[in-house]
Amino acid sequence: MKRSIYMDYAATTFVRQEVLDEILPYFKDNFANPSSLYNFAEVNRSAIKLARQRVAKVINSDENEIYFTSGGSESDNWAIKGIAFANKSRGNHIITSQIEHHAVLNASKFLEKNGFSVTYLPVDSDGFINIEDLKNAITEKTILVSIMFANNEVGTIEPISEIGKICREKGIYFHTDAVQAVGHLPVDVKSMNIDLLSMSGHKFYGPKGVGALYIRKGVKIDNLIDGGSQERGKRAGTENVSGIVGLGKAIEIAGQELDFEANRLKILRDKLIDGILNKVPKARLNGPRGDKRLPNNVNFLETQEMWVSFLMLME
Amino acid sequence: MKRSIYMDYAATTFVRQEVLDEILPYFKDNFANPSSLYNFAEVNRSAIKLARQRVAKVINSDENEIYFTSGGSESDNWAIKGIAFANKSRGNHIITSQIEHHAVLNASKFLEKNGFSVTYLPVDSDGFINIEDLKNAITEKTILVSIMFANNEVGTIEPISEIGKICREKGIYFHTDAVQAVGHLPVDVKSMNIDLLSMSGHKFYGPKGVGALYIRKGVKIDNLIDGGSQERGKRAGTENVSGIVGLGKAIEIAGQELDFEANRLKILRDKLIDGILNKVPKARLNGPRGDKRLPNNVNFLETQEMWVSFLMLME
Repeated sequence: MKRSIYMDYAATTFVRQEVLDEILPYFKDNFANPSSLYNFAEVNRSAIKLARQRVAKVINSDENEIYFTSGGSESDNWAIKGIAFANKSRGNHIITSQIEHHAVLNASKFLEKNGFSVTYLPVDSDGFINIEDLKNAITEKTILVSIMFANNEVGTIEPISEIGKICREKGIYFHTDAVQAVGHLPVDVKSMNIDLLSMSGHKFYGPKGVGALYIRKGVKIDNLIDGGSQERGKRAGTENVSGIVGLGKAIEIAGQELDFEANRLKILRDKLIDGILNKVPKARLNGPRGDKRLPNNVNFLETQEMWVSFLMLME
Repeated sequence: MKRSIYMDYAATTFVRQEVLDEILPYFKDNFANPSSLYNFAEVNRSAIKLARQRVAKVINSDENEIYFTSGGSESDNWAIKGIAFANKSRGNHIITSQIEHHAVLNASKFLEKNGFSVTYLPVDSDGFINIEDLKNAITEKTILVSIMFANNEVGTIEPISEIGKICREKGIYFHTDAVQAVGHLPVDVKSMNIDLLSMSGHKFYGPKGVGALYIRKGVKIDNLIDGGSQERGKRAGTENVSGIVGLGKAIEIAGQELDFEANRLKILRDKLIDGILNKVPKARLNGPRGDKRLPNNVNFLETQEMWVSFLMLME
């Protein structure tokens, strides 16, 4: 019988039991529409508030800077399109990188079809953008820089604090797709000068179909989903109460376990990388080693030579 | 002790037990990312396919015309903004009504800020649009008509088939916000000539945070949420598997019970309306009576006189 071990927790995670326990009452029993006026909706409003506080604590924002969405892709689209449309009178230029998630890349392509221009910064062989490239790309028309916190495939952690500092000095909004980082790496939107940050619940043992966008107070942004007054008028739609509660519980636990887990995973990661490099001479690691790599990421270049030596090892 | 009865199932419903039972395995056990290549993701892909078929059956579409979203507001925003941006070379005029859901009204206002013009049709005292008004509003630049299937507050069922026929003859896309109708009224996108239709799971005993947009094959529409290849490249983001499964089960049951429930609720509705009108002389019903009113809707004009006579009755 063929045995396999699932290791792709960068693609998705299961919902942990503590999260599931906290979610369950919100399907049948506490089912009120949180935006309705009835007293019995109060328990749902409180649950959403608690989730918002839990998210804010882990990224060091204020709770009213957290807006719940349907996931990382919605958060990315909202950040990029919302900033572009709301600030088009100031400029029509956006800077991002060539290795962003498709949600960022394809949202940028949509803007290119609608009057905006986009610079896609290259990365070096380890996946890092070059800070001088960024500085050189900035023009008077630049309104937004969007660079991912950590890459989902090769694990590279970008120089977020440096990027944030440059953008803040120039008065340019800085968005980071932190879908792979939140719950796995320390994130501090204040000290890192981040204006907008995307996250996704199912990357840290929360449910699928729920995410959040941090928007610094004072940032000028249009809505992606217009309508009712939910999320202080910025993101319409009846709140996904169970999803929001689940994301909140999951991020609370991830925050508490972060240091321990990061150290545990770094040891396992490096053991796996070293083992493969020792036993499969043709193997080539993608991305950097050490502290600039996600603790939970291992990625090897797929070549015919690697597979040949790997299969020989298995015999 | 104060007693109250919750009757606002137009705002939201609880998740019924049969739906909850079907959802639960998709949090911890079947947690794969449906878009990943692993064999163990196949169970999630199959579950989503079944949900898509269940939705398609109830509105008489093909399964590949169903796209899952995060709810009715996202579906409305996608339909209106997506049609507008994709067809702006053909025209920049949109027709809707004054009594649409805020998701439609505020998406329309966003377009007005971005180069489009919008006609908001008035309604009569019972909430109906006038078909002649619609015909007169159409210009050579009209690319979209968006009229709700049934009103969420006063229960009016709009003349959808007539609107659909006119739009199809003129080659104009017809979107309907059917959030209050699906699962409660017969809906047939083919015979009614509907090009786009929004629905929301939590209006028919499914979960919050999930909805769908029906897009007729061949309709030219931009994405609202760009990114990965989920939903045949039209709606990015890791699929909300539990939500989609829940919506599918809920709509299947709603479809099976529709005739029985509609008749049962019409009897209760009319009994409540007659009872209030008889006992509270100053009460005034909003919206029409009979078959052009949602079976599950009762709405009275709130006046001081009504409350006075109502409170006298309670003494």
